[in-house]
Amino acid sequence: MPRLVMKFGGTSVADLERIRNAAARVKREVEAGYDVAVVVSAMAGKTNELVSWVRQTSALFDAREYDAVVASGENVTSGLMALTLQEMGVPARSWQGWQVPVRTNSSHGAARILEIETDGLVRKFGEGLHAVIAGFQGISPEGRVTTLGRGGSDTSAVAFAAALGAERCDIYTDVDGVYTTDPRITRKARKLERVAYEEMLELASLGAKVLQTRSVELAMRYKVKLQVRSSFSDAPGTIVCDEEEIMESRVVSGVAHSRDEAKLTVIGVPDRPGIAAALFGPLAEAGVNVDMIVQNISADGRTDMTFSCPVDEVPRARAAIDKAKASGSLDYQGLDVDEDVAKVSIVGIGMRSQAGIAHRMFEALARDGVNIKVITTSEIKVSVLIDRKYMELAVQALHDAFELDKAS
Amino acid sequence: MPRLVMKFGGTSVADLERIRNAAARVKREVEAGYDVAVVVSAMAGKTNELVSWVRQTSALFDAREYDAVVASGENVTSGLMALTLQEMGVPARSWQGWQVPVRTNSSHGAARILEIETDGLVRKFGEGLHAVIAGFQGISPEGRVTTLGRGGSDTSAVAFAAALGAERCDIYTDVDGVYTTDPRITRKARKLERVAYEEMLELASLGAKVLQTRSVELAMRYKVKLQVRSSFSDAPGTIVCDEEEIMESRVVSGVAHSRDEAKLTVIGVPDRPGIAAALFGPLAEAGVNVDMIVQNISADGRTDMTFSCPVDEVPRARAAIDKAKASGSLDYQGLDVDEDVAKVSIVGIGMRSQAGIAHRMFEALARDGVNIKVITTSEIKVSVLIDRKYMELAVQALHDAFELDKAS
Repeated sequence: MPRLVMKFGGTSVADLERIRNAAARVKREVEAGYDVAVVVSAMAGKTNELVSWVRQTSALFDAREYDAVVASGENVTSGLMALTLQEMGVPARSWQGWQVPVRTNSSHGAARILEIETDGLVRKFGEGLHAVIAGFQGISPEGRVTTLGRGGSDTSAVAFAAALGAERCDIYTDVDGVYTTDPRITRKARKLERVAYEEMLELASLGAKVLQTRSVELAMRYKVKLQVRSSFSDAPGTIVCDEEEIMESRVVSGVAHSRDEAKLTVIGVPDRPGIAAALFGPLAEAGVNVDMIVQNISADGRTDMTFSCPVDEVPRARAAIDKAKASGSLDYQGLDVDEDVAKVSIVGIGMRSQAGIAHRMFEALARDGVNIKVITTSEIKVSVLIDRKYMELAVQALHDAFELDKAS
Repeated sequence: MPRLVMKFGGTSVADLERIRNAAARVKREVEAGYDVAVVVSAMAGKTNELVSWVRQTSALFDAREYDAVVASGENVTSGLMALTLQEMGVPARSWQGWQVPVRTNSSHGAARILEIETDGLVRKFGEGLHAVIAGFQGISPEGRVTTLGRGGSDTSAVAFAAALGAERCDIYTDVDGVYTTDPRITRKARKLERVAYEEMLELASLGAKVLQTRSVELAMRYKVKLQVRSSFSDAPGTIVCDEEEIMESRVVSGVAHSRDEAKLTVIGVPDRPGIAAALFGPLAEAGVNVDMIVQNISADGRTDMTFSCPVDEVPRARAAIDKAKASGSLDYQGLDVDEDVAKVSIVGIGMRSQAGIAHRMFEALARDGVNIKVITTSEIKVSVLIDRKYMELAVQALHDAFELDKAS
């Protein structure tokens, strides 16, 4: 029988009523002839409660104990979901990470899945028993409970879909798909029928937080067809798949934004080899997530280095730069910090084969008087840093300019 | 190094503050030179919440899923306790049932421990790592999570103490020991310094709910010295031990009571072999916990059978008796039900060697005008059924008659 993975996030299993609602969807797929592996998160709020207990107990906590505590939320939902399915006449049993087992490395709190041994699970499929899997968790080589980090249940779901050779992995959440842009910014935002893995990766990491980046990467590597859809409506969702499966040749698929960015310029650094390492090494060590990087033209043997990072990491960035200067490893003449910027990006696999897309973007922004501070480009994306107050305006202008409200 | 098992119940780990309080007690024993195995229950109220979710989900629930859900409460406390100990400078790690492993049979919801493999745990003791064990749980031969039933954490603690050859098993709870009787009934109630396993068994099953009967039985079988003491005071507790270790020759150790009893008399059953089986077979099948049984003197080939059971089981008992009559397996002329009785018992290992104890009991009750309805005796106990309204009076009278307020 074909296999299907169905993943339900925290809001989709927030209480017994919602678990029943989710189970009814599982039942429908079982009746359609699938062997189903359901992957569940903890009930909404539970993981946060457990994390807060751990943090209150210990500031520098032992990550192995953190994992033992925090993984318990998924144990509860997997058992309750199995019971609910049984109650609806669907034979099912729960599987905790160590029972499958889901083998991970020992990076507690952010473990990587090494292997999923699906033999036991498949044998139970053969007996007509559907699987309910506690997401987010695994077992280390030392036999300790591990967790995969935030959003880890998506990763669990995709990994199971790959290991089981599932026809599809449906991610049930509280939004009904992936949109051309944030519907709160423009009502013209349109749900995408299909989106390529690469596009989804850019959209996710740029702030369209529907799927965790890691799960999309994993889906891309193993060609797992994903569907993002709502637990609360029957509307079809968005399929995330290989670009070859997308017939329409769209140039731009979506406009992403990230509101709370900061732009830092280190002024007058010596223009010599190794200077980038001298700056970005200490920043990486300090845990600053540097995003865009631009190096200006050199004059008098000195140059300016500009980079962006989340605005709440500015204090850490400042401290790291000061420390590098004090230690003599980095010489510079000034530091300019702009904490009032936002990032807006256009994303689309069609850009690869079509020239002039960046130009159309800059023109559209110029028409509305939006000044561009930094530009970076990749094969399938153009991002600009602008004053934060223009962010909504810029998103709307770009959505219009590329006619994203019209189905291609 | 000598080993010690310390068990903390739900009220002793009800929140982070109480977990810290419990951990401070563990630290003291570590500093006194013990390798400590801490056994923890779920935070007070958590198990009830989980059980209620299971029951709301499914009336006839799959006990395997019940166990998977309900055991998660202890996973949380064991991790938090390990973190708290680390924070206090005590090296410790948590162990879930399957990690030890605690091997049980497959009687989900009321599993029996078959074996505890302590090798891994002892190896960690050797590395200076104290153990925090999630109580109440184990793993079945099929690799599913099992629970030991209500009060199962006491059983876990005693089983670990036996398996580890611990010097003692300290049961920390919200009372500071075992009393000669319920202190709410008479302020003369006195904390016992020592009590024999056999006495504790009678006191527990008679309603002095400090320790689960099963854990006392286990302690008796493996000669595990128990101490019942309070998490909230430093007063010494009560030692539960072999009678040979009790020097004082006390005749009566305590007065137990059980308030909500019912007395049922099946009138006019044929006085022939097999009639007891015809009555008590159906009652057992219906899950009625029959306690005292008395058969009256026969007249005209017929007799009366009287028994007692918890008052809330009367409807089930009635139904079972009716059904047995309807099916023709039990013939009787009437059923008399008295739902207003209570049971009062005196317990003491010294009774074995001393005559006239029952007589002294009946005399004391008669002096205060308490009418006795049913009497049963064992080697170390005499129980009577009386009108419920006299229960407190009877307890006080017996406590005085046997001078239990005086240390022997």
